[in-house]
Amino acid sequence: MPMSDQPLTLVALLHGPDQRGLVARAAGWIFERGGNILHADQHRDEDEGVFFQRIEWVPPAGAKPAAEEKAFLAYAREELRMNAVVTDSARRPRLVLFVSKAEHCFHDIVLRWRAGEFPCEIVGVVSNHRDLAAAARGYELKFFHLPVSATTKAQAEVRQLALLRRLGADVVVLARYMQVLSGDFLAAFGKPVINIHHSFLPAFAGGRPYHQAHERGVKLIGATAHYATAVLDDGPIIHQDVTRVTHRHSVEDLIHKGRDLEKLVLAQALRWHLENRVLVFGRKTVVFD
Amino acid sequence: MPMSDQPLTLVALLHGPDQRGLVARAAGWIFERGGNILHADQHRDEDEGVFFQRIEWVPPAGAKPAAEEKAFLAYAREELRMNAVVTDSARRPRLVLFVSKAEHCFHDIVLRWRAGEFPCEIVGVVSNHRDLAAAARGYELKFFHLPVSATTKAQAEVRQLALLRRLGADVVVLARYMQVLSGDFLAAFGKPVINIHHSFLPAFAGGRPYHQAHERGVKLIGATAHYATAVLDDGPIIHQDVTRVTHRHSVEDLIHKGRDLEKLVLAQALRWHLENRVLVFGRKTVVFD
Amino acid sequence: MPMSDQPLTLVALLHGPDQRGLVARAAGWIFERGGNILHADQHRDEDEGVFFQRIEWVPPAGAKPAAEEKAFLAYAREELRMNAVVTDSARRPRLVLFVSKAEHCFHDIVLRWRAGEFPCEIVGVVSNHRDLAAAARGYELKFFHLPVSATTKAQAEVRQLALLRRLGADVVVLARYMQVLSGDFLAAFGKPVINIHHSFLPAFAGGRPYHQAHERGVKLIGATAHYATAVLDDGPIIHQDVTRVTHRHSVEDLIHKGRDLEKLVLAQALRWHLENRVLVFGRKTVVFD
Amino acid sequence: MPMSDQPLTLVALLHGPDQRGLVARAAGWIFERGGNILHADQHRDEDEGVFFQRIEWVPPAGAKPAAEEKAFLAYAREELRMNAVVTDSARRPRLVLFVSKAEHCFHDIVLRWRAGEFPCEIVGVVSNHRDLAAAARGYELKFFHLPVSATTKAQAEVRQLALLRRLGADVVVLARYMQVLSGDFLAAFGKPVINIHHSFLPAFAGGRPYHQAHERGVKLIGATAHYATAVLDDGPIIHQDVTRVTHRHSVEDLIHKGRDLEKLVLAQALRWHLENRVLVFGRKTVVFD
Repeated sequence: MPMSDQPLTLVALLHGPDQRGLVARAAGWIFERGGNILHADQHRDEDEGVFFQRIEWVPPAGAKPAAEEKAFLAYAREELRMNAVVTDSARRPRLVLFVSKAEHCFHDIVLRWRAGEFPCEIVGVVSNHRDLAAAARGYELKFFHLPVSATTKAQAEVRQLALLRRLGADVVVLARYMQVLSGDFLAAFGKPVINIHHSFLPAFAGGRPYHQAHERGVKLIGATAHYATAVLDDGPIIHQDVTRVTHRHSVEDLIHKGRDLEKLVLAQALRWHLENRVLVFGRKTVVFD
Repeated sequence: MPMSDQPLTLVALLHGPDQRGLVARAAGWIFERGGNILHADQHRDEDEGVFFQRIEWVPPAGAKPAAEEKAFLAYAREELRMNAVVTDSARRPRLVLFVSKAEHCFHDIVLRWRAGEFPCEIVGVVSNHRDLAAAARGYELKFFHLPVSATTKAQAEVRQLALLRRLGADVVVLARYMQVLSGDFLAAFGKPVINIHHSFLPAFAGGRPYHQAHERGVKLIGATAHYATAVLDDGPIIHQDVTRVTHRHSVEDLIHKGRDLEKLVLAQALRWHLENRVLVFGRKTVVFD
Repeated sequence: MPMSDQPLTLVALLHGPDQRGLVARAAGWIFERGGNILHADQHRDEDEGVFFQRIEWVPPAGAKPAAEEKAFLAYAREELRMNAVVTDSARRPRLVLFVSKAEHCFHDIVLRWRAGEFPCEIVGVVSNHRDLAAAARGYELKFFHLPVSATTKAQAEVRQLALLRRLGADVVVLARYMQVLSGDFLAAFGKPVINIHHSFLPAFAGGRPYHQAHERGVKLIGATAHYATAVLDDGPIIHQDVTRVTHRHSVEDLIHKGRDLEKLVLAQALRWHLENRVLVFGRKTVVFD
Repeated sequence: MPMSDQPLTLVALLHGPDQRGLVARAAGWIFERGGNILHADQHRDEDEGVFFQRIEWVPPAGAKPAAEEKAFLAYAREELRMNAVVTDSARRPRLVLFVSKAEHCFHDIVLRWRAGEFPCEIVGVVSNHRDLAAAARGYELKFFHLPVSATTKAQAEVRQLALLRRLGADVVVLARYMQVLSGDFLAAFGKPVINIHHSFLPAFAGGRPYHQAHERGVKLIGATAHYATAVLDDGPIIHQDVTRVTHRHSVEDLIHKGRDLEKLVLAQALRWHLENRVLVFGRKTVVFD
């Protein structure tokens, strides 16, 4: 897979109670150590009094990235009293795709990945159906068929979790995976799971959203990429978009038109996630795009 | 007010059970009488087996529009067995604006009307507040202050109805009027009432939709123009649009950005309504744009 | 490849000098023969006095489509004095894709085609490079490598034309094919060639449009699908769309963001073309969507 | 006119050759003096090696804004070696509107201004026609009728310049003013002049852009707000947007649909300008939105 030819950079995501001087202090620490800030973006939630920041910088020449990360983390947590994560651009998260029968998001993500759009490794494709096995293997991706039925769901989740551990998964993408993951599964996995829901949430949560939209006679249909949480279709929204429909469109037309939306919205959300641009705060996200 | 310099045309809106030959028969009747069809648009609802049509034509030279309307109506109802309404382009519906304190939709509609965008007469401005009285009179519009409180609402609706009758109202536009009209009022008025709701319905129905949207952390906010029905924010949708927001936007920002959406969506819906392009069918609309 | 499960329909595209009664007469002819009109859409160019119509109908039960087509054509040409083409929905045009090195439009079109979005047969992939040979064969498509250089261009076009004839091509799609086809080639082929240009034409015609756009500092970039003509980037426009960019985007970002635009615009234009919704008139198109 | 109830803030716009540590040094200077940074945004033009920054901060309690501005300017210019301007949020620029006969942008800007959207004072309306005199006076704005003809243009510009000086104008907005201002005028005025051009520049520069667009058969029309320069329709672009059109739209329809675009694009550009979010660099802008 293509590797970026950019110089190595570090990215820190910080959040915590607002205090005077946070912008200056974080920037000052990096500057004094010899780093060079490429981007610094911040946000204040006025209602909650919370400060959010994303800083991307080139570490000092000759410094070891791992040591710089550790040092910055210590500074952020101990001196600034902020929640912080730091990653370096050379580390490529290990992504597992969950799919069912629909193939549009699957192909879209894999082709964009091969074209270098996503800084990650796709380390496996998991499905409750066999339909996409050949396509996955055509892309030289490992395919795992884990069937799920109403009675075997808990058991299937145990197997899925074991597989995710074995694959060393850092993030799961539900690319039109048609099973709901339980709160227990999400808690046990403990890492981000990104879902694409085929409506403009919170309108038309739950099943058959295009049917619901057609029934209601809306003039726009949407798609929403969000982090999965224990409450169905309620997790923090990363990205949304809509497209215009008219009375002429049948449910099948909505499904068909919706595919392009789903692909674009999921791809954008995943790109932001992988570039460490998304901070979750309560039920919302801060996206430093 | 500006008058159109177009030749007089007739517009028919038809709907009823689908039958073979409806397009040909309606067109044939007009042709044989000497009329000239300018636009003919139709739609079939496959689920319900219902046919919808809008035809716009120049009546035969020398014919009286009223007689042509009556003749077409008789043909449509008796021969084609369709529900039908016919209007002529010289007839300008009498519109009454309901407003409260917000002025953006009020100015927008009046200025567009003065610029010739809306083929109607604005015959009065009704408000439960006095804030827009001077502005209305500055436009040489009649302003009626009818205060409404929780205890006087039924009584106020009686006065509103009497006023609408006296003004000969054909259509009411709720331009950010902040009172809910009762089902009784709507039934008694018996004519179209167009409302602008400041969200992408069905998301965030009811009060304070921008606050709800901010709370949920959506990435798009919307506005919806719909016909008012007895069920709040549930009437047939005429038009909707959305605009992008981010974590940076406060509730006040959403309110502010939403104003432009509300103006554009309400103006477009009203234009379509006045051009006889909207057919209501159950909870939905067919818009021949 | 997937076949539509719709009943067979005929589609006629007509255009010619406007006359009273055209809508009624065409519809009447079909009705009297026992056909059932599903859609009829028309347009009048007021400046030129030209009438355009698209009619889609189910031929009479038991009738042979070919005979109905012939009969309608004769009626349209001789009685209505209109230019006319008629096609039936069972006939799937033979499409040839021209590609170079960029793969995004290539994959997008082939995947949509396999998903049933395009009613056509893709009968070959022609390229001046070998880069996409394996991918084409992976899709079980015939791949033809026809190198082109400044000195061999005329000769290459002769080979391309021979190949198109051998493949029985009805339409060519230039899916980011990076050679300009000569006017002689287009005249000799004599069938539609659809190109995707990576700008909002007429802005930034010619080479390196994203570089031109970056240089000028525009705030939106676009893509344009058009029929190729002897004058570069000047043919009738079928579809266009744009996306927002900022000062933050480098030329590489524009190229990257533009890919999604190019895919969506080309796919939509091709779908309309294959559904017989596009009429070319002078330098413009009428698109009955 | 409404006054903001926000605390006073200072905004600095900086640009100059990129150097390591600029983010940290500017932030550090403010922090050490006791200020509190609310927003800090920056951009690097990689091609040119230029650094751009916008910083907004609350000055130290008790400090005089004018003294803080002066001190920051000295630091930025002497220590950082950057071009810099600083403004404070209490200072409201004096804006002069130039109009001709079209009224939509005029009403839109004045109504938004009265609703508190624009932090400025509108100190006069200048027109080469009398059409909007009564409307301007209705808003209690001073109206100046300065007729312009081919032979009197140079002379009229002398009078316009004298008037702008007398009014103390800080910025001029050409709200569909239909005369081209000469390069001499712009040089003599020496302050920003914002124009709204009714096309997606660089497509359809010059006169009658909607006619040009209709002629070419484009599927989107646009509007562009830009700073006026000596070369017509070539100045740095601040904002652009487009809307969809079809073959059904006549030139008159484009003009009519375009009005909404023009209003929205000009209002957004003006808001950004007045909030000190726009930096001009060569033929482009950096907009810190």
